[in-house]
Amino acid sequence: MIQQHTVTPLESSVLLCDIGNTSLHFYDGKSAYKKSVEYFESVVPQSKVYYINVNPALEAKLQQRSNWIDLKPYVDIKKYYDTMGIDRMMACEAISDGIIIDAGSAITVDMMHEGIYCGGFICPGITAMQLSYANISSRLSNSFNFELDLDKMPKNTKDSISYGFLRPLYGEVMRHNKSIIITGGDAEHLHRLFTHATVDEMLIFKGMKQMIPRIASC
Amino acid sequence: MIQQHTVTPLESSVLLCDIGNTSLHFYDGKSAYKKSVEYFESVVPQSKVYYINVNPALEAKLQQRSNWIDLKPYVDIKKYYDTMGIDRMMACEAISDGIIIDAGSAITVDMMHEGIYCGGFICPGITAMQLSYANISSRLSNSFNFELDLDKMPKNTKDSISYGFLRPLYGEVMRHNKSIIITGGDAEHLHRLFTHATVDEMLIFKGMKQMIPRIASC
Repeated sequence: MIQQHTVTPLESSVLLCDIGNTSLHFYDGKSAYKKSVEYFESVVPQSKVYYINVNPALEAKLQQRSNWIDLKPYVDIKKYYDTMGIDRMMACEAISDGIIIDAGSAITVDMMHEGIYCGGFICPGITAMQLSYANISSRLSNSFNFELDLDKMPKNTKDSISYGFLRPLYGEVMRHNKSIIITGGDAEHLHRLFTHATVDEMLIFKGMKQMIPRIASC
Repeated sequence: MIQQHTVTPLESSVLLCDIGNTSLHFYDGKSAYKKSVEYFESVVPQSKVYYINVNPALEAKLQQRSNWIDLKPYVDIKKYYDTMGIDRMMACEAISDGIIIDAGSAITVDMMHEGIYCGGFICPGITAMQLSYANISSRLSNSFNFELDLDKMPKNTKDSISYGFLRPLYGEVMRHNKSIIITGGDAEHLHRLFTHATVDEMLIFKGMKQMIPRIASC
C-alpha cells in the first residue's frame, strides 16, 4: 500500500526542511523535493523554514540563519533518548502504534506502542551495504536482488549477499507483529520485501508539522 | 563451548594454507598461525603447501609456485555452487549437519543437513560493518556491544548499531534450529552472542585435510 496523501496545508511562505547527511528534503505545503546538502550554501530561501537536522557539518551554519527555526527544542525528548536522531523522533511523533522503517543513507527502525516509544535500531542503508560488500572483495561487488526467495537459503553470490543483508532485517522487523510504515529515499526498494507495509514519504513532515503549534505556545 | 582439538597430524614438511582477502592462515601439523597477505611475496616456504584461495590478486602468483598445490580441483563442486568461496566449501566438508558461521572480513553462514549443502548467505564482517556505520555519520562511529540485551529494542546509539548489526543476524541463524559452529578470526566476538555455539578455529583445515587423500587417487 502506498499513501499518496500530504500533510495538512502549511501557512503560505513557510517551508519544512528535513536535513540529512546527504540531502535537504523540503516541503512547501504542496510538494516535497530534495536538494543536495551542497545546495545549502548557494541558495537561501527567504521564507521561514522550520527544520530538523542530523548533519553535524551544518549545525553552526544553521544557527546563523534567523529565518531557519530548529524544531528540536519543541520535542518532548524524555519520550526518546538524548542521542537519537531528530528525524527518527519526528517520524515517531507522526504515529501512535507500529514500526517505522526509514530507509536512507542509514536504515533506522523504530517501534511505537500506544504512543510510547519502545526503542529502535540502525542498519547501514542500501548504498552503504553495497559499498561494504564491494570493499571486502570484488567478488561481492553486486547490486541486491529485492525479489529473492526469503524462504530458501541461496546458492549464488548475488542472492547470498542480498539474503545476508535483507533476510535478517526482514525477520527482525516481522517478529514484532506490528503494522509497518516505510519512509525515506529507498522506501520503494524495501517495499518489495515488506509487501504489506505502507509507504509514506511524508511521515517525517507530518511529525514536524505537529511541532509548529508548540512554538507559538512557548 | 570452545574446541581446542587440532586436525589429525600432517606428514612432516607439509603445510596447509587458507588464503583470505587479508591474511594467509597456515597450519603446520602442530599449530596454526597467520601472516598478512603481503607476506606472500617475501617469504617462500620450501615445503609442500596445500592451499585454498579466495583472493583474486594472488591467483596468478600461486600458479607459478610448483610446491603450492591448489585443493579446489579435488572438491566435489556439484555439492555447492560455482562462485561459492572455496573456504566456505572446506568448512562445510568438515561437518555433516549444522550451521557454520565463518567470521572474517565477511561473515559467511552456511547450512549443512545430513551431508547435503542447503545454501548460505554473506554479511559484511565486524570491521567492515563498523566502518560502514562510521562512513554514514560520525555519530554512528562506535564499537559494537556484544553483550547487548537481545530481547529489548535499544534506546542508545551504541546499542542501536550493535542491535542493528547483530540482532537480525542472531535471529536468522537461530530460526533454523541447528547446532552452530563458529570459526574465523572474529569467532570469539560472535561467541559472546551465540553462547551455545562451538568455536572451532581449525574447521577449514579439517575440511582441507580431507581433500589430500583425493590427490593421490587422481
